[in-house]
Amino acid sequence: MTKRVHNFSAGPGVLPVPVLETIQRDMLSLPKAGISVLEISHRSKWYIEIYEEVQANLRKLLNIPSNYHILFLQGGANFQFSMIPINLLRGQNAPADYIVTGTWGAKAVKEAQREGEVRVLWNGKDDNFVRVPKQTELTFNSDAAYVHFTSNETIQGVEFPVEPDVGDVPLVCDMSSDFMARPFDISRYGLIYAGAQKNAGPAGATIVIIRDDLLAKIPDDLHTMLDYRIHIKKESSYNTPPVFSVYVVMLVTRWLLNDIGGLAEVAKLNHQKASLLYNLIDESGGFYVGHAQTDSRSIMNVSFNLPTPELEQTFLTEAAQHDLHTLKGHRSIGGIRASIYNAMPLESVQALRDFMIKFQAEHKT
Amino acid sequence: MTKRVHNFSAGPGVLPVPVLETIQRDMLSLPKAGISVLEISHRSKWYIEIYEEVQANLRKLLNIPSNYHILFLQGGANFQFSMIPINLLRGQNAPADYIVTGTWGAKAVKEAQREGEVRVLWNGKDDNFVRVPKQTELTFNSDAAYVHFTSNETIQGVEFPVEPDVGDVPLVCDMSSDFMARPFDISRYGLIYAGAQKNAGPAGATIVIIRDDLLAKIPDDLHTMLDYRIHIKKESSYNTPPVFSVYVVMLVTRWLLNDIGGLAEVAKLNHQKASLLYNLIDESGGFYVGHAQTDSRSIMNVSFNLPTPELEQTFLTEAAQHDLHTLKGHRSIGGIRASIYNAMPLESVQALRDFMIKFQAEHKT
Repeated sequence: MTKRVHNFSAGPGVLPVPVLETIQRDMLSLPKAGISVLEISHRSKWYIEIYEEVQANLRKLLNIPSNYHILFLQGGANFQFSMIPINLLRGQNAPADYIVTGTWGAKAVKEAQREGEVRVLWNGKDDNFVRVPKQTELTFNSDAAYVHFTSNETIQGVEFPVEPDVGDVPLVCDMSSDFMARPFDISRYGLIYAGAQKNAGPAGATIVIIRDDLLAKIPDDLHTMLDYRIHIKKESSYNTPPVFSVYVVMLVTRWLLNDIGGLAEVAKLNHQKASLLYNLIDESGGFYVGHAQTDSRSIMNVSFNLPTPELEQTFLTEAAQHDLHTLKGHRSIGGIRASIYNAMPLESVQALRDFMIKFQAEHKT
Repeated sequence: MTKRVHNFSAGPGVLPVPVLETIQRDMLSLPKAGISVLEISHRSKWYIEIYEEVQANLRKLLNIPSNYHILFLQGGANFQFSMIPINLLRGQNAPADYIVTGTWGAKAVKEAQREGEVRVLWNGKDDNFVRVPKQTELTFNSDAAYVHFTSNETIQGVEFPVEPDVGDVPLVCDMSSDFMARPFDISRYGLIYAGAQKNAGPAGATIVIIRDDLLAKIPDDLHTMLDYRIHIKKESSYNTPPVFSVYVVMLVTRWLLNDIGGLAEVAKLNHQKASLLYNLIDESGGFYVGHAQTDSRSIMNVSFNLPTPELEQTFLTEAAQHDLHTLKGHRSIGGIRASIYNAMPLESVQALRDFMIKFQAEHKT
């Protein structure tokens, strides 16, 4: 039995052990193939089977209707920060509206500004990104090319409880760090995208789901690899796709369907895990202080502080001695961050909670 | 013991079994980590160790001096077809010169034309891409932004025995399908790039090696992910890199150094393997007809035809019965293609050769 530690990495993050075990078992040969998944052509029947299963699994898990296309691209969310405005803002006689609730949303704005006018409808920066806006704080413009928001800000641990209502304007969402963490109504979105390396698989694949009518906005003469229409037409195999990453996403979706029972079930588990930590924070009498305001708390990334940076360092050192790893907060906000994605076992969160109780008892002055 | 077949896939292609076995062994936990390589942060010490080793191994294998940067990007050679002219042609008062010896070179031209003037110095299309030009057939322009060529055309099986001499103009090479197959003098190149999925690893990583002085040509205000300078400054971790693919490239370079003994040794093996097939073709009395002219033959992709398409289909069917797989030629030229990358065992090539002799004896009319 391989010894495994509790891995609270913000991404690439923890994967389900049964998925890792399947990868391990079949590394020298996919069932009956005699060839590793790392060695199969993307035109082979083995890859086509993987591709068709992951498409079907995602459609089932997310209830995706046929007027949405599911793409597997490369370059992560950062590349989508550019690809989205290149496709949907360039050449439009309309600005794009962005809601900025953390580091990633701000980066998305920067790239969009290269392609056209950007209106920032709401920006949490002055408040150190501790919350998402309420619907009543947002005024949408019916002339916008699209509205962009980040459903979960990985660094700040700030998450929209539900997507904003933007009327008929296409809603575009960076769902990188809470994709498949809970059910959502895809029909409210024009485009969602997610780097796989949080809830969906390893780094190297980016999932983009785009509604068919948005394609009419795309300018002609884009570089081939920058044009969503090409990737749709070629079913994400215009170029060699990231075969292994797509394979692992397929295994993760299979795990979600068969072992977990779908997104409503995984959301229950995620809320249970997050509550364990947030309840402890709330009951710590100010020893642990959550970064996000209560109604904006992320169920994926629990960012919090201790009374002093020195104590935070001690916390990290002692946590590691208890096999609790990768808990250091992002350098931009410091403190502690526990990322508890879909694949994070409840037992690991309980182990962290137990350690936090013990640590407070030992260090409270 | 897992049963493995002979896999002549053109890409993603065969990988060394010891590399697959290491991946398999460590899939649940990197040595002493307690975390899978699929779950490590790209900011973790484990990834930094992988990254530093692959950089060091590549520098050693290819004898790369310090004025060249080694990048690990995403999107494959297709994305480089665009990224190169965006960085090195856009805004230049100079055309780029392209040598086209097959399908991939032609695709590279198409994207470059979006960014500036392209002069095609030589095009093998009218001769059905059966050879590379001689040095004496090429006239270079000292005013060119760069000269681009494809060292090995995977589909046609046409390879430059040695790179063209372009004087002081930066030489840019798509080395996707013969990267690390033989030693070459990096100092003759301004930029080389290669999708990993032939000789270097699985799909999902693109290796770009760029000489420092070329960076001065890059225009300001590029999208962040399109700017080589950003990726250099951030050591290919501006965004989440394709961690697993980089890890496998590291293992492959380790295998080349420690098990094979370097690129001169692997080149000997590659010539030995290729000769087995080409000699048989030459001695078949016209039953097997190689696509490439003799002096342009690829040591990586052996493309050939049989007397009729029907016989080619029979060949593929019977080959599969002998565990010889993925031998179908690319749809654009038909026939048979045996891709025999670095990791292809000599025994597999011998098995193919034995089958070809038997097949000819049984089917020669």
